[in-house]
Amino acid sequence: MAAQPRDVVEQYVKLVATGPTSAIVDLYAEDAVVEDPIGTPERRGHEAIGELYKALENLERETELHTVKVAGNQVAASFTLVTVSNGHRMTLSPIDVMELNDAGKIISMRAYWGPDDLKMEQI
Amino acid sequence: MAAQPRDVVEQYVKLVATGPTSAIVDLYAEDAVVEDPIGTPERRGHEAIGELYKALENLERETELHTVKVAGNQVAASFTLVTVSNGHRMTLSPIDVMELNDAGKIISMRAYWGPDDLKMEQI
Repeated sequence: MAAQPRDVVEQYVKLVATGPTSAIVDLYAEDAVVEDPIGTPERRGHEAIGELYKALENLERETELHTVKVAGNQVAASFTLVTVSNGHRMTLSPIDVMELNDAGKIISMRAYWGPDDLKMEQI
Repeated sequence: MAAQPRDVVEQYVKLVATGPTSAIVDLYAEDAVVEDPIGTPERRGHEAIGELYKALENLERETELHTVKVAGNQVAASFTLVTVSNGHRMTLSPIDVMELNDAGKIISMRAYWGPDDLKMEQI
């Protein structure tokens, strides 16, 4: 049985904190399209999408899922990502919207966030 | 100057609680498209969109805006709508995503919510 949309989003947010890039990318269909944040060039396919998450791999990071809304195979999720490196803490709080295919893979992800949703602090 | 996306969303959520249908519809461009919730038929234009809000007009209602994310002219907002009528309280907590045109009018709105986000209680 295909993974349920809510489970996929929960898994996604968990893996953004704990997973290797390969595990995150594996949630996406092979020809998936990502726009993160909205307004930046689209990334199409596993390799291009992987670059987005590879940047996180060597950072201390955690995520917290705030809310998930499911409308059929389309979902919206509000969460927070905190990363720490070189004495800086970055806090990003987007709303990601995703569409899943019948196999439970993400075929598109678009991230709503702007400068107001990104905080950098020295620690 | 065109209204800013964040102001439009704040105004929208406020008017869903307090406004006549005409004031809500006026936030939309004339050829706007609404899908609420996602998966239901699209409503195109002021008249079709107005039907959605007219259903609220005679209800006691309030809204609370939880969070707004702005990415250029595209926004996502998490909020709660509570209505009371005939001894029933309905609580709906969607995430709405909207795209605005250069004039600051909403050209599309899509609402992410499902059965888990709608509660009915007798009071």
